[in-house]
Amino acid sequence: MNHYPEAILKLIRHLCRLPGIGEKSAERFAMHLLTAPDEEVAGLARSIADLKKQVKVCNTCFCLSDRQTCRICSDPGRDHGLVCVVESPADMAAVEKSGSYPGVYHVLQGLLSPMDGIGPEELRIRELVGRVAAGKVSEVVIATSTSVEGEATADYITRALKSYSVKITRIASGVPMGGELKYIDQVTLKKAMEARRAV
Amino acid sequence: MNHYPEAILKLIRHLCRLPGIGEKSAERFAMHLLTAPDEEVAGLARSIADLKKQVKVCNTCFCLSDRQTCRICSDPGRDHGLVCVVESPADMAAVEKSGSYPGVYHVLQGLLSPMDGIGPEELRIRELVGRVAAGKVSEVVIATSTSVEGEATADYITRALKSYSVKITRIASGVPMGGELKYIDQVTLKKAMEARRAV
Repeated sequence: MNHYPEAILKLIRHLCRLPGIGEKSAERFAMHLLTAPDEEVAGLARSIADLKKQVKVCNTCFCLSDRQTCRICSDPGRDHGLVCVVESPADMAAVEKSGSYPGVYHVLQGLLSPMDGIGPEELRIRELVGRVAAGKVSEVVIATSTSVEGEATADYITRALKSYSVKITRIASGVPMGGELKYIDQVTLKKAMEARRAV
Repeated sequence: MNHYPEAILKLIRHLCRLPGIGEKSAERFAMHLLTAPDEEVAGLARSIADLKKQVKVCNTCFCLSDRQTCRICSDPGRDHGLVCVVESPADMAAVEKSGSYPGVYHVLQGLLSPMDGIGPEELRIRELVGRVAAGKVSEVVIATSTSVEGEATADYITRALKSYSVKITRIASGVPMGGELKYIDQVTLKKAMEARRAV
């Protein structure tokens, strides 16, 4: 590597910290940026530098936002009685992309993971209970991942909310669309079989 | 996508221009940068912004350098009579990494590609002929890729240099190390057979 000038090596070291990027890809990005138009390179540098300054967290649902209350939380067209609980802003984006959800969100900013020192206090669970306690929520859809941590977090939230008169639901798990049965793992198939529906 | 704040969308649009990066990866990078330590994010932004300012091109071999004459061209330990012709700084880095090359380089900064409007004048071929004409070069190793453009460029350079008393060689092509014969394409095998050597 050290046949490159120091400025390139420094950039490669920084790019290597991006998730899933090794030395080869970082080198390719650096070579691309060297030959890219000046305004493109400056634009990328500026948008990285400005990122944290300009992005805030919504004070209601804790999603990423450019203002104090996010676009979804301040949209009168959304169903504010329906709250979807997700782990992260990226998960929220995934649900939004599906185009099937009319309600609002609550972003936990993580999942319970005692091994990593993440307990209920590190997540936005207290704030979720607060929203439900305020009485305007009729249903909470728990849409955490179906991983061990996701299931544990869903269980914890279910217990935390059970004393309130709110409907608690969990997104369905089963065979994904386009999935070939022979390639689906056994646990998923077992869940899909147990949750079979009349057609 | 448009459920993210504008600052994130802007960053994603910029990241998507990196080679091989689609919207999904760009989104993942943006989410990583949002939660990364401030100094890491600022360091990345700075190293991108500084890149073009700090990186120069060597005035002898046209590789990337932090000074007017690169480290290799100013190294008295290298064989300055042996010149390896490569397409790009990345190719030069690949040869350097192999650790087998004692000479110096000449970076063409591209390959002949009439379809893309790249003729001999767009490359550093005239400068290569100049270095050979100066009389201190004894061998030119043409190490362009074995693609159509690489072979055409190698042919062109061979013809451009044939009136000078310089040895012109081409890197060997054949079966790559670790390659299984049954997976090697026919053209490569044909070349490897033609170029077979006594052992």
